[in-house]
Amino acid sequence: MPGETELIDRYFRLLGAVRTDVALGIGDDAALLRVPAGVELVQTTDALVAGAHFLGDDDPESIGHRLLAANLSDIAAMGARPAWALLSLTLPAVDEAWLGAFARGFGILARAHEVALVGGNLARGPLQASLTLSGLVPEGQALRRSGGRVDDEIWISGFPGEARAGLGLRHPQLRAAVLPGAGSLDAATRAALIARWERPDARVALGIALRGLASAAIDVSDGLWVDLGRLAAASGCSALLDAQALPVSAALRAAAGPEAWRELLAGGEDYELCFAAAAAQAPAVQAAAASAGVPVARIGRLAGGGGIQLLRDGAVTQFSAPGFDHFAS
Amino acid sequence: MPGETELIDRYFRLLGAVRTDVALGIGDDAALLRVPAGVELVQTTDALVAGAHFLGDDDPESIGHRLLAANLSDIAAMGARPAWALLSLTLPAVDEAWLGAFARGFGILARAHEVALVGGNLARGPLQASLTLSGLVPEGQALRRSGGRVDDEIWISGFPGEARAGLGLRHPQLRAAVLPGAGSLDAATRAALIARWERPDARVALGIALRGLASAAIDVSDGLWVDLGRLAAASGCSALLDAQALPVSAALRAAAGPEAWRELLAGGEDYELCFAAAAAQAPAVQAAAASAGVPVARIGRLAGGGGIQLLRDGAVTQFSAPGFDHFAS
Repeated sequence: MPGETELIDRYFRLLGAVRTDVALGIGDDAALLRVPAGVELVQTTDALVAGAHFLGDDDPESIGHRLLAANLSDIAAMGARPAWALLSLTLPAVDEAWLGAFARGFGILARAHEVALVGGNLARGPLQASLTLSGLVPEGQALRRSGGRVDDEIWISGFPGEARAGLGLRHPQLRAAVLPGAGSLDAATRAALIARWERPDARVALGIALRGLASAAIDVSDGLWVDLGRLAAASGCSALLDAQALPVSAALRAAAGPEAWRELLAGGEDYELCFAAAAAQAPAVQAAAASAGVPVARIGRLAGGGGIQLLRDGAVTQFSAPGFDHFAS
Repeated sequence: MPGETELIDRYFRLLGAVRTDVALGIGDDAALLRVPAGVELVQTTDALVAGAHFLGDDDPESIGHRLLAANLSDIAAMGARPAWALLSLTLPAVDEAWLGAFARGFGILARAHEVALVGGNLARGPLQASLTLSGLVPEGQALRRSGGRVDDEIWISGFPGEARAGLGLRHPQLRAAVLPGAGSLDAATRAALIARWERPDARVALGIALRGLASAAIDVSDGLWVDLGRLAAASGCSALLDAQALPVSAALRAAAGPEAWRELLAGGEDYELCFAAAAAQAPAVQAAAASAGVPVARIGRLAGGGGIQLLRDGAVTQFSAPGFDHFAS
C-alpha cells in the first residue's frame, strides 16, 4: 500500500496552478513563497467534515471543489486575490479512486483561480478535509466587516438560497421539511440547483472590483441573515432589509414556493458576497459588478442601533434564521 | 450551547503571542498580515488525529502543545522564524474543559516562540486538530533538504529516540514489544522520557543559527533513519552513519537497553534537526549549536550513490526502521 509521501506525490504535488512566486512547493519540510512588496498577506482556513458538511457517499469531486470554494470565498470577501493553499486530509483507508476524484474537483477550481497547492498532509482517520488558503491584497485596501457606516446601502451578489435548496434536493433527509416545489421541478432546474450546492463558485473577481468602493464586506457562508448580522454588528450599525428587493431567482421560487425569501435569507454555501457601500457609490458598484460579470442587488441599508430587521412595505416582518452554525446544531 | 463563533472568541481569539505584523487577526473573514521586504514566506501544515497520533484520553494540553511543536519543527528545518498559525479543530461535542486545556498547551508554546493564532475553524466531528504555520526567512537563506553534497558531514541535534521511548512508556499497548528497561526505570527518568513525547520542543533557534552553515536540513518527525534517507535522496547522495557516534542518552539506554540505538534510529516526534554541513564548517556548526543552547552530534557523512548504511567499525550493520508513516501502517 502506498505511504503518505507517495500518495501526496501522486495526487497533490502538481495540483492547481503553476505560479512563479512559489520558490519551493510540496516535497520539502515547508513551502517557500515570495510575497511582493506593497501587499498584505490574507489567510483563512476552513474544513469540510463528513457527516457535518457532506455525506460519506457524496461525489468526492464535489467535496474537493467545495472545500476550495469555501476558502476562496473568505479571500474574496477581503477583496484579495488567492494564491497558495495547504491541504490536510484524513481518510479512513487509502482509496485512490476517491483521492483522484477529490484532487480533480479541487484542481479544476484551483487552476481557474490561479491557486497553487504548496503543502499537503495525509493521515488515516475519519473522513475530513481542511484547507488553508493565502491571498494577496494591496496594502491598506482589504475589505473588512467593520467599515460600514449609517446610511450605507447593503448589497448582495447573485442568488443566495439556491445552494440550500440544492442541498435539500440532493439530501432531502437533511431537511426538517420537504421543499414544496421539489416534486414538480423540471430536470434542468433541479440539476442547476443541485449544482449550486455541489459546485459553488466564489466571487473573487467581484471582491477585487469592490476595493475602494465597498465600505464593508462578508461572504455568505452561514446564511445571509446571519452573515449580514455579523457585518452590521462589526460596523456598529443595524441592518434594515427590504423584503421586496431580495433577489429570489425563478429556480428558487420554483423549488421553495411563495416562502422562497425565507430560503434566501437562511441559505449559505452559495458563497455570495454581502457588502455595504455609500449611496453615492451605487453607479460605481453596478459598474464593478458588471465588469466582474456578477449580478448584484441592493437590498437595504445600514442604520443606527443594532440588530437586523426585515421590512415589507415599511412594516417589520418576523424572521428567524436557522443559519448554518456547524457547531451549535 | 455556545456556537462556533463564541467558542473561537472564548478560547482562541487572543491565544498565542501579540505581534505587530498582524493587521487583523481572528474575527473577520480572513487574517491580514504584513510581510517585511526581503524575506520569503514559509508555510507548512500538520495534523494530529485521535487514534493515529494520540489517544482520546490523552491530556489535551499535551495535544495542543504537540500540534504546534510538529509544525514549528518544519519551520525550524527551513531555518525560518515562526510567525502566524491557523487552527482547524473538530470535536465530537462541546467540551469546554478540553478546549481550555488544549488552548493552554498551545498558547504557552506559541508565546514562547512568538506565534500568533490568526485564524480558527471549529466543527463537530471526530476529534482531530490541523494547523497551518507560517514563518519568515531572509530571501535565499532557507535550508532545504536538497543541498547536501558528497563528503558533507551529517549532524543530529539532541537525543532522538527519547520521545518514542516515552510514547512506549505512556501507551505500552501501542508497541509490539515492551521496552526492556521499562520496569526498572526510576521515576524521574520515566517522567522525563514521557515528557519528551508529551511536550517536545522544536529546534527553532538552531535552525536559524544554521543559516549559511548547513547545506541541507530536515526535521526528524518520522524517525532519523527515514528522514535522513529523505535528505540524502533529495541531495542525490547516500548517507553513511557511524553507529558508535549516535547520541544515545543515558535515559534512552536505561529504557531501551543495549539495543537503544535501534530506538534512536526509529524514533520520530522528538522533533530534532538532522542536517548536513561541509567538514570545514564543523567548528562553526558547534558554535552555532552552542549559541542556540542545543547539543549536536556528528554521526556520519554523505557519499556518492544512494541509500543509507549504518557502519560499526567499518562494517555494515543491518537495520530496518519501522518509521512513523501515518498512512501506511
